[in-house]
Amino acid sequence: MRPGGRSARVRSAVIEAVLAELSGGGYEGLTVETVATRSGVHKATIYRRWGGVDGLVADALAHSAEAPWPIPDTGTLAGDLQEITRAVLIGFTDPHLGATATALINAALRSTQGARALAAFFAARLTQAAQVVTRAIDRGELPPGVDAVEVVRAATAPLYYRLFITDEPVDDDVANRAAAAAVAAARAGVFDTAMGEQQGNTGRKADELD
Amino acid sequence: MRPGGRSARVRSAVIEAVLAELSGGGYEGLTVETVATRSGVHKATIYRRWGGVDGLVADALAHSAEAPWPIPDTGTLAGDLQEITRAVLIGFTDPHLGATATALINAALRSTQGARALAAFFAARLTQAAQVVTRAIDRGELPPGVDAVEVVRAATAPLYYRLFITDEPVDDDVANRAAAAAVAAARAGVFDTAMGEQQGNTGRKADELD
Repeated sequence: MRPGGRSARVRSAVIEAVLAELSGGGYEGLTVETVATRSGVHKATIYRRWGGVDGLVADALAHSAEAPWPIPDTGTLAGDLQEITRAVLIGFTDPHLGATATALINAALRSTQGARALAAFFAARLTQAAQVVTRAIDRGELPPGVDAVEVVRAATAPLYYRLFITDEPVDDDVANRAAAAAVAAARAGVFDTAMGEQQGNTGRKADELD
Repeated sequence: MRPGGRSARVRSAVIEAVLAELSGGGYEGLTVETVATRSGVHKATIYRRWGGVDGLVADALAHSAEAPWPIPDTGTLAGDLQEITRAVLIGFTDPHLGATATALINAALRSTQGARALAAFFAARLTQAAQVVTRAIDRGELPPGVDAVEVVRAATAPLYYRLFITDEPVDDDVANRAAAAAVAAARAGVFDTAMGEQQGNTGRKADELD
């Protein structure tokens, strides 16, 4: 799709309308009708191109995944992971944009198509963010063979768990603790790939327990 | 409510029907009509007592939270947390019961009432499971002042994150790694409450960053 082409302009207008509707009324308030009215794009066009509400939510997520996402480079793994967990925190609690991002994830959790888009979104973000771990390995902060993506999962999972599963509060302390826990576990060798593959992390073979 | 009374029998029949419907067709297939047919309880009774589908899902979760949940006591924190993460893993991937539990959580994530029930469910489980950390403190494995619930959150969050947010596979390695990461972070002092309150986990004051 050519940026700036008519197709791209239509997509931008529609996605902007989806986010505005989600932010205002959540998933319940989101209909093809309201998106059509807000975006000025014909209902028939929206149905043809996005299929319906779930397709709109999935594409809004795909659009977010495409957006450039600044990867921190503070010079230490602890600093970088803290910037990442803080970015997650701010992304969902910011007074202006947090509600939209939260509503988008919650909407995506409600349909198969949305869940697929969510999986792709996280795969993209995790791969990007894993750079901070690869750099830590290059600097000698961590040994080679650490599962870089798993370190980022460990740092960010506690925030998503609180935000979307247990509905518990998140704040700077939660973000800092999650980052610090991932660093401590990485340093202790928990995310070493060889360890996971060869013997599990406990000295017992995984297949003994099946 | 008297156990064994008529009211309790009605509730059991209805919740069993809810779980069976969720297991078969997920949230989309769940209606008061299908639950009434399967349970043999009048639609009018269900509407009066549960309000509708979201109330049924919330009560099914409340019922799960009431069920006794065995707390492991292996003698070590690492062993206990591993049993807990393994129980989460099995709970959602067991060939017989996993689909029902997964559908129940997914259903709960779709409504405000369900989300509230889910929060209560996790609060109950986290408090119960925190016993293993308290025991580790009593044994001298961890210093006093460790946030016991936070250790359990850290151990289990990566599983819920994969199961319900990113839709990534979970297996014994994932469960073991999550438990081992929580232990390593706890030993490194990341979950010390004094540390979190006084200086954050990084030596920087949290309020410097607001």
